[in-house]
Amino acid sequence: MSDAIRIERALNAAVESVEFPECPPNLAAAIRYAVFPGGARIRPRLCLAVAAACGDDQPAVTDAAAAAIELMHCASLVHDDLPCFDDADMRRSKLTVHREFGERLAVLSGDALIVLAFQSLARVAAVVPERLPRLIQVVGTAVGAPCGITAGQAWECEQTVPLVEYQRAKTGALFAAATELGAIAAGMAAEPWRALGEYLGEAYQVADDIRDATGDPEKLGKPVGRDVALDRPSATRELGLEGAVQRLKGLVKVAIESIPECPGAEELRAHIIAESNGLLPKELDKQAV
Amino acid sequence: MSDAIRIERALNAAVESVEFPECPPNLAAAIRYAVFPGGARIRPRLCLAVAAACGDDQPAVTDAAAAAIELMHCASLVHDDLPCFDDADMRRSKLTVHREFGERLAVLSGDALIVLAFQSLARVAAVVPERLPRLIQVVGTAVGAPCGITAGQAWECEQTVPLVEYQRAKTGALFAAATELGAIAAGMAAEPWRALGEYLGEAYQVADDIRDATGDPEKLGKPVGRDVALDRPSATRELGLEGAVQRLKGLVKVAIESIPECPGAEELRAHIIAESNGLLPKELDKQAV
Repeated sequence: MSDAIRIERALNAAVESVEFPECPPNLAAAIRYAVFPGGARIRPRLCLAVAAACGDDQPAVTDAAAAAIELMHCASLVHDDLPCFDDADMRRSKLTVHREFGERLAVLSGDALIVLAFQSLARVAAVVPERLPRLIQVVGTAVGAPCGITAGQAWECEQTVPLVEYQRAKTGALFAAATELGAIAAGMAAEPWRALGEYLGEAYQVADDIRDATGDPEKLGKPVGRDVALDRPSATRELGLEGAVQRLKGLVKVAIESIPECPGAEELRAHIIAESNGLLPKELDKQAV
Repeated sequence: MSDAIRIERALNAAVESVEFPECPPNLAAAIRYAVFPGGARIRPRLCLAVAAACGDDQPAVTDAAAAAIELMHCASLVHDDLPCFDDADMRRSKLTVHREFGERLAVLSGDALIVLAFQSLARVAAVVPERLPRLIQVVGTAVGAPCGITAGQAWECEQTVPLVEYQRAKTGALFAAATELGAIAAGMAAEPWRALGEYLGEAYQVADDIRDATGDPEKLGKPVGRDVALDRPSATRELGLEGAVQRLKGLVKVAIESIPECPGAEELRAHIIAESNGLLPKELDKQAV
């Protein structure tokens, strides 16, 4: 089964687990709307790629971990799009959750998605209970305070925003968790895999800044120019476009070099190069990696 | 050590775990502000009382479970008070989190508190890893969709609100979890303890409706008359004041009768009678239980 199918199935199983008659219908609909159709699913694909490189001895556990990381990502998008943050109208080429379902259901569906991610993980206990505590700790660290994506978003509420801490928490944390979870799900130690996720998270953030500065809103499915409009720190604002592209190149290079010795290292390197080539708008593609 | 001290210590340990220099200072402050000083801590005290009745063989696990349930409760208060829901200015005799820190930090601190609750549970894995999966499942069920407090709040976004499902999810779910967690933390089965939590949750909701209809906002530390103002279903609106007081009496009685055979059943009955007597405004006290 392809990684893409594994991820959609795992996400669908998680979402279906709330679709009972007892659930308020609009909450169930908002949860499904927030998860499907998805974006690039880049974090769960990274999780699966690392698990594969580590042997992937328990695919059901890997799938649950990949779903958890994507559910957390979806939750963060729903909350980040709220009127009090980005006040975004469009996401993934459709109305944002709060524009489609109202602000209250956007808050609640985000909350429910965070919980669902942990519930998704708890189900793996039936297979390999000894891997559960670490999975939960890694997801919790990536999402909560002091250094997870919640903290990343919260830096936007401070007078002074340290760019490195901000991006490390807002984007890097979930990428680092994606690689760590892939390793843990396959029964390996997480620590050697953290650097790969951190570098790729930073690379992704730089690419996102470049797309925000240069992209086509129709192709991206969301508005552009938001960093300048909202006065947020950004790699293109700090380094210029050319500098940002160079930074991206450098990050992908060190990411690949950081891959630990493992049976599937070669395939993983190929996966990361292919993913990285897709990060930039076409006209900048050739410069990227 | 008294239950009250155990609960405050466990909550403080959880909150301290995010208070690192890497954490955005306002996020850390908002999290602490949302948790301290607390309200009646009625849910974690119920959790400890049930654990004690079951032998409480692992007090650190019980404390973590009690903290998790209270952190979830605090998260729900912060999000329920948001402008898009109750738009409340006061909570626990001080400004609500969004009035003190702004709406963005209210959303984010609520998110972080949900995550912190699961992280608090994950730490028990060091002591009794075999109890972790059930603890997580019970907390997840109590908070998420389809039937947890998130779903309870989401019923307010539907055209038709079924009163029983609404109150069972909005209030009952966390009380049911409190009794189940107490049992699981002490190594016992959760199922026989669920009814006690459900009855007490319903009793608490009825008492809350009565306080909203009759209470003094200064003593309560929050405004009253909100159910009518927001056109929410309520026991006093449905049954009248006298009918609501009778309903409360009946619920406490069946709750006490539902307590399973266990070493500490007698003390638990006394605990619940004492708690129930504190649920109502003084002038209605004598009628209550």
